[in-house]
Amino acid sequence: MTIEDVQNHPDSRNMPINKVGIKDIRHPFVFVDRDGHQRATVGTFNMSVNLPHHQKGTHMSRFVALLNEDCQQLSIKGFNALLEKMTHTLEAETGYLTTEFLYFVNKSAPITGVKSLLDYQIKLDGHWSKSDQKIKITVVIPVTSLCPCSKKISEYGAHNQRSHITVTAEIGDNICAEDIIQLVEKQASSELFSLLKRPDEKYVTELAYDNPKFVEDVVRDIASVLNDDQRILAYTLEAENFESIHNHSAYAVIENNKLT
Amino acid sequence: MTIEDVQNHPDSRNMPINKVGIKDIRHPFVFVDRDGHQRATVGTFNMSVNLPHHQKGTHMSRFVALLNEDCQQLSIKGFNALLEKMTHTLEAETGYLTTEFLYFVNKSAPITGVKSLLDYQIKLDGHWSKSDQKIKITVVIPVTSLCPCSKKISEYGAHNQRSHITVTAEIGDNICAEDIIQLVEKQASSELFSLLKRPDEKYVTELAYDNPKFVEDVVRDIASVLNDDQRILAYTLEAENFESIHNHSAYAVIENNKLT
Amino acid sequence: MTIEDVQNHPDSRNMPINKVGIKDIRHPFVFVDRDGHQRATVGTFNMSVNLPHHQKGTHMSRFVALLNEDCQQLSIKGFNALLEKMTHTLEAETGYLTTEFLYFVNKSAPITGVKSLLDYQIKLDGHWSKSDQKIKITVVIPVTSLCPCSKKISEYGAHNQRSHITVTAEIGDNICAEDIIQLVEKQASSELFSLLKRPDEKYVTELAYDNPKFVEDVVRDIASVLNDDQRILAYTLEAENFESIHNHSAYAVIENNKLT
Amino acid sequence: MTIEDVQNHPDSRNMPINKVGIKDIRHPFVFVDRDGHQRATVGTFNMSVNLPHHQKGTHMSRFVALLNEDCQQLSIKGFNALLEKMTHTLEAETGYLTTEFLYFVNKSAPITGVKSLLDYQIKLDGHWSKSDQKIKITVVIPVTSLCPCSKKISEYGAHNQRSHITVTAEIGDNICAEDIIQLVEKQASSELFSLLKRPDEKYVTELAYDNPKFVEDVVRDIASVLNDDQRILAYTLEAENFESIHNHSAYAVIENNKLT
Repeated sequence: MTIEDVQNHPDSRNMPINKVGIKDIRHPFVFVDRDGHQRATVGTFNMSVNLPHHQKGTHMSRFVALLNEDCQQLSIKGFNALLEKMTHTLEAETGYLTTEFLYFVNKSAPITGVKSLLDYQIKLDGHWSKSDQKIKITVVIPVTSLCPCSKKISEYGAHNQRSHITVTAEIGDNICAEDIIQLVEKQASSELFSLLKRPDEKYVTELAYDNPKFVEDVVRDIASVLNDDQRILAYTLEAENFESIHNHSAYAVIENNKLT
Repeated sequence: MTIEDVQNHPDSRNMPINKVGIKDIRHPFVFVDRDGHQRATVGTFNMSVNLPHHQKGTHMSRFVALLNEDCQQLSIKGFNALLEKMTHTLEAETGYLTTEFLYFVNKSAPITGVKSLLDYQIKLDGHWSKSDQKIKITVVIPVTSLCPCSKKISEYGAHNQRSHITVTAEIGDNICAEDIIQLVEKQASSELFSLLKRPDEKYVTELAYDNPKFVEDVVRDIASVLNDDQRILAYTLEAENFESIHNHSAYAVIENNKLT
Repeated sequence: MTIEDVQNHPDSRNMPINKVGIKDIRHPFVFVDRDGHQRATVGTFNMSVNLPHHQKGTHMSRFVALLNEDCQQLSIKGFNALLEKMTHTLEAETGYLTTEFLYFVNKSAPITGVKSLLDYQIKLDGHWSKSDQKIKITVVIPVTSLCPCSKKISEYGAHNQRSHITVTAEIGDNICAEDIIQLVEKQASSELFSLLKRPDEKYVTELAYDNPKFVEDVVRDIASVLNDDQRILAYTLEAENFESIHNHSAYAVIENNKLT
Repeated sequence: MTIEDVQNHPDSRNMPINKVGIKDIRHPFVFVDRDGHQRATVGTFNMSVNLPHHQKGTHMSRFVALLNEDCQQLSIKGFNALLEKMTHTLEAETGYLTTEFLYFVNKSAPITGVKSLLDYQIKLDGHWSKSDQKIKITVVIPVTSLCPCSKKISEYGAHNQRSHITVTAEIGDNICAEDIIQLVEKQASSELFSLLKRPDEKYVTELAYDNPKFVEDVVRDIASVLNDDQRILAYTLEAENFESIHNHSAYAVIENNKLT
């Protein structure tokens, strides 16, 4: 018995579809970053392609088969190769691929040097066609921000809080996720660590007090560094301060496309 | 004693900021939709403005004051007025305002006519400057989808599931959120209800079996209706099926900007 | 034509069910708290009852009908009445009802007195049978915490952050959600406000620096107040500090049942 | 210079703390299940201990150090060892440890046998003291449910949907997470797969139609299996059907403690 292939029927509505595929499928893989540094993680993937007006449906199972066969290890370069292969496998003109996952960096506390892992959210987002190819990387970097106004107007103390710096960038070949993390952390009131001994806690407390920054200052100082770095081709930079004195966030965005 | 206003200091980094403001502040209000229909709800607001290069910081507290003073009731038109007032209050050129909330429609079951409320997520998203003003509305409409392939190849039954149809549209003056909801629900395998008696359940079960649609079919059929409706100026239309036979979603997108 | 009622069939597996019903249904209502203070909000409800071993299924649609007919306004007392009515309507021995929603308090800034709404998450959770009835209220109160160790060991500054204090309590008749909120906020390093002018920001910054508290101190100080308050019959008290120097939380719990 | 240890000060409030520690710290590790099967994953950990009334604070950094030094690989047995070591390292009487993570099983499609990974959420939750030790495992198993009422009353078709079966169990030594997954999947209308070819889709569609089950039936049938399995000592079993005809869930719970 042959089983009819309904998706392969012709379609008469004369309506192409921009993207069709699968969403929110989880898959484990090893992410390879700077210096071949490898980290096992779990990604959430979205995979889709365009569909011409005359085709009734895409081949959903091919996305899943590809993920299971070809996604044990990914670098940014490997992500691009997977995206191109996916587009060919689906016999499409344009393919769209995203994955989001946690990446860990083994950091040293600033005074005692004790080591601990800190987690960063990373997203890779690309599209591929013969004539137009682009990969963007998003890295969410948690930091400390300390309020200059609160410091200035108070006789002692200053409110501070955890903040998320989100960099979404088009990048050249010679830059990795950890490079972006380091660029950003140097511009915060202080960077974060999972493990701090008392001398380290004293250091980061005083460091933050010595480096008060509004949400506006943080995006300006990071944008200044991203502007000077030739490996960053275009970016959207967001800062969100989870204000310790309010139940909402302060938020700022700077965008720059050096390619235009 | 005068308290120094640090945010009002000049800034020498020569770096304008695209958006600065507050994020994720909750505020209760009454949303007014079609025929003056009023529903009390709770919104999550993002409010921001541009900041010229010479200003150190924006006036964060003015956003909160505006929300508390001027946001007891909102229609789409009222949202636009709030956005313009916000931009002026912050002494900015461009303002950005979004709010997300649940909206309830009192629906009648298809056979027995019993009434019950169904919830829909709505988002309003706008920017305002003298030369460029735009409001987009997003409505998430939960429906049933039934798989044509599963129906065709199986001797009996067909897998079906809850799906989210998300319409993000630029709209003219004479259309409301409930209009978009009704346009969409008619194109699904079946619409949803909170309360169904047995005769209603029989009806929606058979209706869905009589209207099998791939995720591709759903976006094509809805796009066809949105294309024909002059009140929709531009849209992005997404369908996500929370597949009952997989642990991931099927997903499709059609975009159309009639203004270009 | 009569439509068969499958749920009403007898069941031969000899297996009673602890709880069966509906989960995560959204419904708008007005919450009435202290001094008849009314706030429109949107609740997420779970409604269930026990099912004896001989019954095949419960009457799911009765839960939805009850919500639509009898839940326009709720106080803690009204919640108890709804729960009892639900149990009778479902012809069950024991009923279980929960709702979660946001509640807003109109607060005055500490120095300037400017007014603004602050949001608190509330959950009501009850079960009802002839022989055993209990209602618990959970209130999540966002506050500021400032670290005593960081203050002590640093020459200047001290890390601080937003914290969530969660009180889950069995209460007597003469206490409301706002009473619990006020008991808790007085014991934090500082309470939060949506709107603060500069003199207010100076005040809360210095107040927090003058009241450094570990997560351990916060739960001890609040527990001390809850222990002394006769209107609180039993409680679980949690504090979570979203540490500004780490990417994880500090967390503490004290439980006390005065009834045993 | 010595830095004062504020946490080690005595405390005079005479108030012991039930639990104090860290919450929501992410950490990568390899989970080892049945037959030594290893899967790299990322866990979210909560770690806490009791604190006697005379101690001002616990040693937060020891939790983080322990995670970084002693948590590269975990089985259920290894989790127990980590929990005991944590309690001793913190010099406490009682320790509490939880971790939540995704676990992948490489499944074969029912007809074609094509292989693909399916993800399951697992939680381990334990406490340890000299006199009282307990580990509970929670596994969330996504399945298909098909409604018997909808099938019975309709001339064709039947609504079905994805469901989550959540088993929280105290277990003996000789049972693993994958064993629980298999016990549960056999009792659903159908199990799920990431990758299905057309003959597989036909099979699972007809299988579900041949096995209609209310949320009440699913918990009764699984409870029956769990009752008969000597390796399960006590359990809470939940089923949640994300109804394809409603915007809320059907939900049922059966609990059984064989130890009492």
